[in-house]
Amino acid sequence: MSLPRIAIDAMGGDEGVRVMVHGAAMARRRHDKFSFLLVGDEAQIKSALEEHPNLRGASEILHCEGVVEGDEKPSRAIRRAKTTSMGLAIEAVKNGDCGAAVSAGNTGALMAMGKIALRTMPGIDRPALAGLMPTLLEDDVVMLDLGANTDCDARNLVQFAIMGAAYSRIVTGKAAPRVRLLNIGTESIKGTDDLRQASQRLQDATGLAMQFDGFIEADKINRGEVDVVVTDGFSGNIALKAIEGSARFVTDLLRTAFTSSLRSKIGFLVSRPATELLKHHLDPNNHNGGVFLGLNGVIVKSHGSANAQGVGNAVDVAARLLEDNITQRIMADLAEVEAEMNGNAQGASSPDAGGGPSK
Amino acid sequence: MSLPRIAIDAMGGDEGVRVMVHGAAMARRRHDKFSFLLVGDEAQIKSALEEHPNLRGASEILHCEGVVEGDEKPSRAIRRAKTTSMGLAIEAVKNGDCGAAVSAGNTGALMAMGKIALRTMPGIDRPALAGLMPTLLEDDVVMLDLGANTDCDARNLVQFAIMGAAYSRIVTGKAAPRVRLLNIGTESIKGTDDLRQASQRLQDATGLAMQFDGFIEADKINRGEVDVVVTDGFSGNIALKAIEGSARFVTDLLRTAFTSSLRSKIGFLVSRPATELLKHHLDPNNHNGGVFLGLNGVIVKSHGSANAQGVGNAVDVAARLLEDNITQRIMADLAEVEAEMNGNAQGASSPDAGGGPSK
Repeated sequence: MSLPRIAIDAMGGDEGVRVMVHGAAMARRRHDKFSFLLVGDEAQIKSALEEHPNLRGASEILHCEGVVEGDEKPSRAIRRAKTTSMGLAIEAVKNGDCGAAVSAGNTGALMAMGKIALRTMPGIDRPALAGLMPTLLEDDVVMLDLGANTDCDARNLVQFAIMGAAYSRIVTGKAAPRVRLLNIGTESIKGTDDLRQASQRLQDATGLAMQFDGFIEADKINRGEVDVVVTDGFSGNIALKAIEGSARFVTDLLRTAFTSSLRSKIGFLVSRPATELLKHHLDPNNHNGGVFLGLNGVIVKSHGSANAQGVGNAVDVAARLLEDNITQRIMADLAEVEAEMNGNAQGASSPDAGGGPSK
Repeated sequence: MSLPRIAIDAMGGDEGVRVMVHGAAMARRRHDKFSFLLVGDEAQIKSALEEHPNLRGASEILHCEGVVEGDEKPSRAIRRAKTTSMGLAIEAVKNGDCGAAVSAGNTGALMAMGKIALRTMPGIDRPALAGLMPTLLEDDVVMLDLGANTDCDARNLVQFAIMGAAYSRIVTGKAAPRVRLLNIGTESIKGTDDLRQASQRLQDATGLAMQFDGFIEADKINRGEVDVVVTDGFSGNIALKAIEGSARFVTDLLRTAFTSSLRSKIGFLVSRPATELLKHHLDPNNHNGGVFLGLNGVIVKSHGSANAQGVGNAVDVAARLLEDNITQRIMADLAEVEAEMNGNAQGASSPDAGGGPSK
């Protein structure tokens, strides 16, 4: 069986066609069984491909002139979707021509187009945006939802946990990733009703391919104690941006500190390998590839300002999600949790029912 | 008029009586018109006071043997409040013997005892926990609520904005602090209904002693663009802990980086003044003093692991809140916003009403 193609929105992103094509070429070297559909201005794409014969031989170009603007309202972008590189890349997934689409363009438009064109997969009420964040250890942590859904109920959170665990298994190679719900304390009485209900359901569902460890607080996300952090889109976006802003705050302070005296400047130069290591570890390009999980098809969001390496990582993520068939993995776990919940519901309605988890 | 006394829970906190008394003595040197009520084990307090004759002359000791444990449930602590140093410090505020209480003990118990003993001030539905966070510039930013209220409606958020602005005026000296609501985007359509309603009400209320600038995202909290960040207690706690965890994450990475090679170690030594500056800026002891705003009396929470300087800063905060009469300031702004809201309500019910804001 041949692996499906990956559609690349060559026009999205702040860095232009060359960076998107360069990134795809880097990913292609690591995943040489994939072919690509490059969507956008043909002349620009052809010119960019000249430097990457390896990718050129495995690519088809789909010409189009329209581009979704970075500040364009999703409602407007949707109406002209089929005249834009982003919309056509998603359309290629919808009609089965490609298995995944990668774009560095407008996140809101990408999500809106993806939902309308691909629809949510059976058993999922709402798709979620999942991202990778650095930790003190080797593996990245998966966090979702990062902003697709402002309000989430217990059922949504359980589905996010299942989707996040499937993503983490692919990213980390762990058979049973450690999953936790983001909360303002770790005791079982903390947080909202929906969080407590979701926690109970995940504890009850014993057959899932994950290790559910209860709640986690936002200061523990990066310590390597968890593989998947599950949250509603509001809190997830707050946490993500607080972490990004705080990391930038500390590095800004550090730069100020290091340039405040000659002695510090010399110290900075001598210790450059150390600060380069820090920079490498915090560089979003090394953790690039947000994924919209829960759609009938894979959509990967590359950071708008990602360099070629960052784009390459995003395309890598798409390739690995396809190779490992994430949709099937999620559906198997969904079936498991639905069976557990039906078992519980029967137990609750019938006093004679002896089976099912007791709580 | 003599200034009111400040009650110190000498037993709360991880660092013991000596650190609490030392901190109070440091604050007393900066605010020499205040006197103190030191609550806790008399022998230990007397012994600690021997090193601080300046404080001893301005203090009275209230002996008690009970201490609220760090992991004690608030419901249990409340029942034995009047046998604990924390409960008696708050009781001294309630009966008018002191104007403020400072404790480094169990936050949940402190809040629960404060609410029950002091009750919320007129016009405030719920008290909020406000904290100070470092910024790239000179002034700290006030953030509230940091976890006292999991769910908040628009009315709560407006009250938090008023209380936060009053606190910021005292901390920064600014007549009209810049206030924003924490949200997942800055456009007026972003976020929850309650956030949008709160934003509208704060825009309409023109007579408040603040400059309301709309929404702010969590990555901008520390950039010096805002003086007060207003949020519900769930998001606020997530943001606070994400920032703390992220700052710790970066400094941990930095330590690893600096100790990974001899060259880096030398670089670290040479640049120590720079990293010390960073450490100083991020040290929570320099931003110590969370305040429960909205009660009939001032309660300041010192960080559990604060050193003497940190305790001194927390006592400073209590002294300044009393000197500047924060309760009166909040009540004046509350009257203002109530008048605006009543004006609006009349305008809405009577088509003939010509006055009041048009929106």
